[in-house]
Amino acid sequence: MHMSTEQIPDLPTEITPQSQDFGRWYIDVVRRAELADYSPVKGCMVIRPYGYAMWELIQQGLDRRFKATGHVNAYFPLFIPESLLMREAAHVEGFAPQVAWVTHGGNEKLEERLVVRPTSETIIGTMYAKWVQSWRDLPILINQWANVVRWEKVTRLFLRTTEFLWQEGHTAHETAEEAQEETLRMLAVYKDFAEQELAIPVVDGQKTDSEKFAGAERTYSIEALMRDGRALQAGTSHNLGQNFSKSYDIKFQARDKSVQYVHTTSWGVSTRLIGGVIMVHGDEGGLILPPRIAPYQVVIVPIPRGNWRETVLPRAQAIRDELVARGMRVFLDDRESQTPGWKFNEWEMRGVPLRLEIGPKDLEKSQVVLARRDTREKSFVPMDGLAGRVEELLAAIQRALYERALAFREEHTSTTDSYEEFKAIMEGRPGFVIAPWCGPAACEAAIKAETQATIRNIPFSSAPAAGKHCLKCGGAATAHAWFAKSY
Amino acid sequence: MHMSTEQIPDLPTEITPQSQDFGRWYIDVVRRAELADYSPVKGCMVIRPYGYAMWELIQQGLDRRFKATGHVNAYFPLFIPESLLMREAAHVEGFAPQVAWVTHGGNEKLEERLVVRPTSETIIGTMYAKWVQSWRDLPILINQWANVVRWEKVTRLFLRTTEFLWQEGHTAHETAEEAQEETLRMLAVYKDFAEQELAIPVVDGQKTDSEKFAGAERTYSIEALMRDGRALQAGTSHNLGQNFSKSYDIKFQARDKSVQYVHTTSWGVSTRLIGGVIMVHGDEGGLILPPRIAPYQVVIVPIPRGNWRETVLPRAQAIRDELVARGMRVFLDDRESQTPGWKFNEWEMRGVPLRLEIGPKDLEKSQVVLARRDTREKSFVPMDGLAGRVEELLAAIQRALYERALAFREEHTSTTDSYEEFKAIMEGRPGFVIAPWCGPAACEAAIKAETQATIRNIPFSSAPAAGKHCLKCGGAATAHAWFAKSY
Repeated sequence: MHMSTEQIPDLPTEITPQSQDFGRWYIDVVRRAELADYSPVKGCMVIRPYGYAMWELIQQGLDRRFKATGHVNAYFPLFIPESLLMREAAHVEGFAPQVAWVTHGGNEKLEERLVVRPTSETIIGTMYAKWVQSWRDLPILINQWANVVRWEKVTRLFLRTTEFLWQEGHTAHETAEEAQEETLRMLAVYKDFAEQELAIPVVDGQKTDSEKFAGAERTYSIEALMRDGRALQAGTSHNLGQNFSKSYDIKFQARDKSVQYVHTTSWGVSTRLIGGVIMVHGDEGGLILPPRIAPYQVVIVPIPRGNWRETVLPRAQAIRDELVARGMRVFLDDRESQTPGWKFNEWEMRGVPLRLEIGPKDLEKSQVVLARRDTREKSFVPMDGLAGRVEELLAAIQRALYERALAFREEHTSTTDSYEEFKAIMEGRPGFVIAPWCGPAACEAAIKAETQATIRNIPFSSAPAAGKHCLKCGGAATAHAWFAKSY
Repeated sequence: MHMSTEQIPDLPTEITPQSQDFGRWYIDVVRRAELADYSPVKGCMVIRPYGYAMWELIQQGLDRRFKATGHVNAYFPLFIPESLLMREAAHVEGFAPQVAWVTHGGNEKLEERLVVRPTSETIIGTMYAKWVQSWRDLPILINQWANVVRWEKVTRLFLRTTEFLWQEGHTAHETAEEAQEETLRMLAVYKDFAEQELAIPVVDGQKTDSEKFAGAERTYSIEALMRDGRALQAGTSHNLGQNFSKSYDIKFQARDKSVQYVHTTSWGVSTRLIGGVIMVHGDEGGLILPPRIAPYQVVIVPIPRGNWRETVLPRAQAIRDELVARGMRVFLDDRESQTPGWKFNEWEMRGVPLRLEIGPKDLEKSQVVLARRDTREKSFVPMDGLAGRVEELLAAIQRALYERALAFREEHTSTTDSYEEFKAIMEGRPGFVIAPWCGPAACEAAIKAETQATIRNIPFSSAPAAGKHCLKCGGAATAHAWFAKSY
């Protein structure tokens, strides 16, 4: 069942070129950069400190936004009794095949099996039913940071693992309008977060019925394009309507004294975002991290010549202290066991946005060398005003990464009305393909079966499809859908 | 097996007096103040937003201290294969009887059962064995914030639940000396945190062999005294010696080129700390929260007379904004559905350290009323310089709570050499009893069987026991132990 410790492959010493095998490059980078590793438990990963530091920064950026939009955090049980999971029919159908079952506690067999939560609508809905009595108790705006488990057959570090970390928002509202507003508000929060913090441009829109969350009325997503031309669903927000409130009996006395079911939403993003960052920004040299979520934004490498410990090192320490005092995350790599060249390679591979080199000659000239990870440009910068210059460069790198990713997406987004052309694109140059589509699931399924491409979403910004014909069946198109092969 | 939603009792409307039934008072306060609630899963609790906000503040206070002492966070799998758990004999004996077993994933029976982690020494040790090659890779100083599961027969909200949240530090070192230093360093961090942030005085010392962590060489703890005279173990730090490194094969090439096993430690505190805060500081009126971990440090209650919305409310908002800008956590309770009297009671019950009242008459006099939760003192304070005065009062409350708790502990700590007196104390006035003890487990077990009292620890500050005789057997005493009935 599980991988024994001996079976976990050793860390790769070289990184497979991205151009040669993107999938291999990805795993090599994740492991060599010490973001994550395989574990002795099938499908479960270990998030190592460097990767977890990225997750902490992601958590902070999201949590701040959740609280600014009125949400609070709470924590609900890991286990869900089988009978409770089973109440919402569509939800059961979607999740029951992929859950882990707890059957024994201590030395005893349980009377009722427990599911390890794959998502928490059912247990949270049950509690809301106890807590909500009146319209005055609404809205409930709760988020949970938690681990969830989905029994996956094929796994890949960060992107698809049996256990993963995520946040799941669960809200309850008086009216359908408020629930819809909340659903879209949180999708907008995700888009803002992805673009501002992760420097990942995303397409926001609505999922088709066949790609909806199990039990939702409507699912919305943000979709990003990876450098291998595949799309990654980076976040979802669901309007659950009254499906769960009816199954879990979440009722309230309305303003008009009638008894109503609440309208609920849920929304989540996960550690998968780290995989997105790697695959959107990385290059042959390894990781490239956007400064806002880089565990170290600047690495300082002193050049060990002459009596550098008495001359260069104190200055390097003073620079580090000044940058840290201004709120930057800095690592001074003063290890004597490694050469500067080794350190340059190592920190480039690990994606640190900016390297600061300082040696005896620089001291004489009262300057340092700054090397950008994204462009690999090096420049001599005077000590005077250095901290301000570093801040400017970090901001410039953050912007440049976003713009480069946006340009890449635009270059890899095509529009076609022809199914023949569509198939050719999906076989050759990958990316998003925008095409008119008729609406029912049959055409979508046929396209997927023939090309592996799925409808990622119908973007809010999509051009009207009136007068257009479905790519597949030629019937009247209802929308321009964005197709791609996806993770 | 599980409690159906209908079986979860409704929230209590009144709080049982502390003097009448401390245990009932505790549960009433936890549920009425909306810190936590029962769930449909036996033994598992829901941590509600008000309680979770306390946990977030606890996390921040601890995480800052962990990072300041060189630790980083990571995340390891929830599941542990049975064969992996079984490698350390003492550890298995301690934990196997109280774990939850996953036997099925998806629709298939697993070839090997998985344990839901009760603690993570085994899975983390397995990874350390992969990561550590040389003395240069040491020390490893990792902490994990996680949920753990221990199948408990009798549970109590926050204090003992089947699932709980905690942090677990796991470190690996070159030498026994370094591991011992780390073990004591983290115990000191816990003591500092408990006293500075939670305002809970604690006794730090070493556990006896019979109370050690399963698999540890030495276990240290901090112990606090609750207002019912029972002790609560508030944090533990374990020196695991080479027990786990030998079982999980964590070896390294030492500086002298020999191959050695690392020396490991582990240390943890949990959501149980919230239970400690409630039982150390609370009174008949409900919760009393130390300002440093109070979700709201100040609640502002405007007095709704005349055209208060045009006059009082804007001033109340301005005060809130000023306090928030200075970093305080403030709630302005401007609900019109409730009277000021109701709000006074509500926020007193929920333990907010300071209430600020403001009405039309106060406006005329350019003053506000400040009411302390701990002493219930009310004072008129001029608007001029208000924020500074509020900060001073919060600091004074934090100090006063610590001092009151310390005085209570001192009043409830006795010293005796006589077993008859010891038994009388344990039946009557509860608290800590300091008594000489000979060392072996037999006397300790006999005392526990007869009085329910256990040795909480042997404090570092304990007076020497040379020439003293064991309380129970009269043999030569090896230490002055601190006994108490405990949670």
